[in-house]
Amino acid sequence: MTTQDRFTLIRPDLDRLEAKLRDVSDVTYPPLATVITQLVSAGGKRLRPAVALLVNQMYPADAERALSLAAAVEMLHTASLVHDDFIDEAALRRGHPTVNAVWSPIATVRAGDYMFGRAASYVAETENPEVVRLFADTLQVIVAGELRQLFNRAETLPTRDDYYARIYGKTAALFALAAQAAAALGDAPAESVGRLRDYGYHFGMAFQVMDDILDFTADEKTLGKPVGGDLREGIVTLPVLIYAEQTPDAPALRRLWEYRADGVNRLAAADEVVAAVRDSAAIEAARAEARAMAARAEAALAALPAAPARDILADLAATAVSRQD
Amino acid sequence: MTTQDRFTLIRPDLDRLEAKLRDVSDVTYPPLATVITQLVSAGGKRLRPAVALLVNQMYPADAERALSLAAAVEMLHTASLVHDDFIDEAALRRGHPTVNAVWSPIATVRAGDYMFGRAASYVAETENPEVVRLFADTLQVIVAGELRQLFNRAETLPTRDDYYARIYGKTAALFALAAQAAAALGDAPAESVGRLRDYGYHFGMAFQVMDDILDFTADEKTLGKPVGGDLREGIVTLPVLIYAEQTPDAPALRRLWEYRADGVNRLAAADEVVAAVRDSAAIEAARAEARAMAARAEAALAALPAAPARDILADLAATAVSRQD
Repeated sequence: MTTQDRFTLIRPDLDRLEAKLRDVSDVTYPPLATVITQLVSAGGKRLRPAVALLVNQMYPADAERALSLAAAVEMLHTASLVHDDFIDEAALRRGHPTVNAVWSPIATVRAGDYMFGRAASYVAETENPEVVRLFADTLQVIVAGELRQLFNRAETLPTRDDYYARIYGKTAALFALAAQAAAALGDAPAESVGRLRDYGYHFGMAFQVMDDILDFTADEKTLGKPVGGDLREGIVTLPVLIYAEQTPDAPALRRLWEYRADGVNRLAAADEVVAAVRDSAAIEAARAEARAMAARAEAALAALPAAPARDILADLAATAVSRQD
Repeated sequence: MTTQDRFTLIRPDLDRLEAKLRDVSDVTYPPLATVITQLVSAGGKRLRPAVALLVNQMYPADAERALSLAAAVEMLHTASLVHDDFIDEAALRRGHPTVNAVWSPIATVRAGDYMFGRAASYVAETENPEVVRLFADTLQVIVAGELRQLFNRAETLPTRDDYYARIYGKTAALFALAAQAAAALGDAPAESVGRLRDYGYHFGMAFQVMDDILDFTADEKTLGKPVGGDLREGIVTLPVLIYAEQTPDAPALRRLWEYRADGVNRLAAADEVVAAVRDSAAIEAARAEARAMAARAEAALAALPAAPARDILADLAATAVSRQD
């Protein structure tokens, strides 16, 4: 089943979502309207709003409010990417120049702020205090996680708990929000809301672990950047952690920390570790972990009433850990 | 009447506000908790939340929700200052080092983001969809105004309408939010909500015009920076606009635009214009305009039921335009 097929059920919703995200008629400052249009038109898989819209098929809320929630989730994601790209000094995102490659840093920051405001407007349209609260909490979780990473970068080898906490903030928190908030908006029973949050959480975790594996295994052309980019930037992901558990005395690994204040030698050590990890059993072990997380996402759905949307949600999680790019 | 006396009526509310703003027990990342505590402890006059709390005296809402709104307004203001300081590369704010003087740019941006999330959490606590909507709209107005200014800086002499639009985004929008949202939260009649929004708007406009006048007239020691700082940075405020209307052929003014791409000569011209404006009738004309705005703020209150809080709101607006620092 392709992503297209999977989304047939919510195709009309997704079309309305695109129209809503691209409607910048209320943005009074033209350059800002242009930037927003470019960012939302550049695409992305719309996975997060799709989760919200699929949950809404199971527990339908007012259609306009469900659409507003989906738009809020995607806009929060996009706003966060704008500040991420600023932080990473990225030049391209989804094949288009990033805001910070075209605008000054200060304008980039404020463009991201504007999109946070836009996401907040969408979430306000749900008129659901619980959804608003979840949204605000999630923004704080995402940002606190990023700050923690900024300050902890490359000081010590993180623990697995550090790693899980980081990818929760980076990815799983927003997936969990999408599923939980849609269930809450549709007045699902409290137990079902909890299960859908679990689903979103484990789906997001599995998705990010796969992303972190692909940073090692993907074709450089597909990836569009050198493999091992995370480690070169000082970010330790699951394959490295497993490799370190399996090979604690690996000399390259030791050098990575010895040279952490020495840019040139650190990069050389990072490249060595990347090559070693690629050829090690750590990759398959990390994949097994991603599959286990996806299985937990599917398991969280099992107790919910059977529905086409439920099967698609399960399929999305399963597919996330078999993807090759 | 001093600010202390004026706030006697809402002193218990303001004390609870301080406690709420300083409660960072939910912030799991300690350095972030420290920064938030420093920022909110550094003070500021709490004028914006005071407006909300005084309106709440006239149209009481649930006490916890009113407190949450006041906290949201102040936190939105504080978050915006963090990104402003980043934009201005300011080193001090309220006598303390700014976040960006201590943290890296990227951490500063994310610290500001976190505070936006915190403000959103406070506003979610009001459980009032209209208040949430107003809050989200205001964030967009503030940010769009700032972006407009960033791109328009020093290109042409702005019109008065440009100037009013800018200070609306910079200051009046948040004062208007404080008054309007508090009225909406207290279920004030629609007409009264509108009047209180008008009050907040005109109070904010008067307040910012006075700020812009003080940038010319204040003692350098009180100001803590050279007079005419705005114009030196390329920001044209009301005293300059009035001076230009009164003296359209002033040579220094002409040079200011001729040299707009020539840093050294532009600064020299700016200093000349600042000196000329200080000695001109433009200052008194700008003051008259600020007083007229404060009078409109007071007039907006006149049709509301008499109440001690109403008199204090009127007094706050009147005082804003007589202040000397």
